[in-house]
Amino acid sequence: MGAQTIAPTSELSPAQPLAADHPGITELFAVLAYGEISAFYRLAEEAALAPSLRGRVAVAKMAAAELAHFETLEAALADRGADPEGAMAAYEGALDSYHRSTDPSTWLESMVKFYVGDGLAADFYLEIAGALPTEVADTVRDVLAETNHSQFVVDEVRTAVALSRSERDRLTLWGRRLLGEAITQAQYVMAQRDELAELVLAATGDLNGIATLFDRMQERHAARMAELGL
Amino acid sequence: MGAQTIAPTSELSPAQPLAADHPGITELFAVLAYGEISAFYRLAEEAALAPSLRGRVAVAKMAAAELAHFETLEAALADRGADPEGAMAAYEGALDSYHRSTDPSTWLESMVKFYVGDGLAADFYLEIAGALPTEVADTVRDVLAETNHSQFVVDEVRTAVALSRSERDRLTLWGRRLLGEAITQAQYVMAQRDELAELVLAATGDLNGIATLFDRMQERHAARMAELGL
Repeated sequence: MGAQTIAPTSELSPAQPLAADHPGITELFAVLAYGEISAFYRLAEEAALAPSLRGRVAVAKMAAAELAHFETLEAALADRGADPEGAMAAYEGALDSYHRSTDPSTWLESMVKFYVGDGLAADFYLEIAGALPTEVADTVRDVLAETNHSQFVVDEVRTAVALSRSERDRLTLWGRRLLGEAITQAQYVMAQRDELAELVLAATGDLNGIATLFDRMQERHAARMAELGL
Repeated sequence: MGAQTIAPTSELSPAQPLAADHPGITELFAVLAYGEISAFYRLAEEAALAPSLRGRVAVAKMAAAELAHFETLEAALADRGADPEGAMAAYEGALDSYHRSTDPSTWLESMVKFYVGDGLAADFYLEIAGALPTEVADTVRDVLAETNHSQFVVDEVRTAVALSRSERDRLTLWGRRLLGEAITQAQYVMAQRDELAELVLAATGDLNGIATLFDRMQERHAARMAELGL
C-alpha cells in the first residue's frame, strides 16, 4: 500500500495510548501484511492489462514496493513472537474476497483501484495509528507512506479521462464501487478477530468514532478521485 | 536471475578486452534486463501453483530480487544513453517464446525451472563477462550473483524427489527439456542483433569457443540437477 498523495487528516488521539502488548497489534500487523502480499500478486496479475512494456515495468516496481512493506511487517510479526503465515491466515478470506469483487477489466480500472484502494486502506489504518504505542505507529506509518509510484498512476488516469468523457464516467462509477467494497471489507476484517475489533474501538473511542472515521474516509476518497480527474 | 549455487568455471579471457563503447554491451544489458523483468512476471504468475502461503511469500521475494536486478540494468542502460524499453523490445520475442515453451504445470516444475533456467542463463552470461570491460563485467556479475533464495528451492525439490521416484523421473525429464530450450533460446537471442553476436564471438574467440561454452553449460547443468537430487 502507499499510493495516496492526499495529506492525512489529524489522527485520532484517545485519552491513553494502547499497551504495547495489546494482542490487537499482532492482528493489525497480520492484516496489513496479508494486504501487502495480496496487493503484490494482484498488481503482478493485472500488469497483463498494461498497454506497453513501460507500463509493465512501472507496475512491477509498484508490486516490489508492496513487497518491501510486507517484509517490514513480517519482521515486526516475528519480533512479537508470531508466525507470520499463521497470523495472516485469518485475513485471507476477507481480503481475497475484496480483490475478487473488484477485479479490474481494463488497465485504467487497475490503476484507479491501486490508487483509490490503497488510499482507503491507508486512511483507515493511519487513523488508528494515533492510538498506538510509538514504535508500532511508526511501523504502520512506514508501510503506508506515500510511494513515488502514485504520480505515474495519476498521470496515466488524468491523461485518459481528459481525452474521453465516457471513460471518465465509467471510472467514476468504478471509484464509487471501490469505496463501497472497501468499507464492506473493512467491517469484515474487523469481525475476523475480537482483538482487532477491540483495538479499533479503543483507537476510535466508540461506535460513533468509527462512524466519524468512515465519514472522513469518504471525504478523502472524494479528494483522491478529484486528483485523478474523476 | 541468480539461482545458481554451483561455482562458476573459469571465465573466458580473450587476448584483449572489448572496448567500453562496443555496441554489443548495450544489447547485452538489454537482453539481461528483459530476462529479469520477464522472470519477475513468470514467477509471480507461477506462484498460483504454490501449495501454501509460505510458498507464495518465498516466490514473491524471489520475484522482487529479479526486479532489483532489473533496476540495476535499467540504470546501466540509461547511463549508456539507451532507452531501456526500446532496447529491450528486440528480445521480447525470443524470451517470451522460451517461457511459453517451458510453462510449468506444477509447483515443483516451476521451482526446477527457476533454479535450472536461471543457472543456465548465468553460465552463459558469466562466461562472456571475462571479456568485458571491468565496469560492465561487474554489473553483469552483480545481477547474476547467487541469491539466498536458491536454498529454498533446493530444499523444496530435494524433499519432494526423495519421497517419490515417479516425481524424480518426471522432473529429470523436465530438466533435460529446460536445457534444450535454453540452448535453442540462447541461439535465437544471439541472432536478434549483429552487435550481440559480435560481442559473444569476441568473448568466446570463435565458433569453436561457442561450442566449448555450450559443452561447459551442459556439464554445469548436470551438476545443478544433482544438487536438486535429480
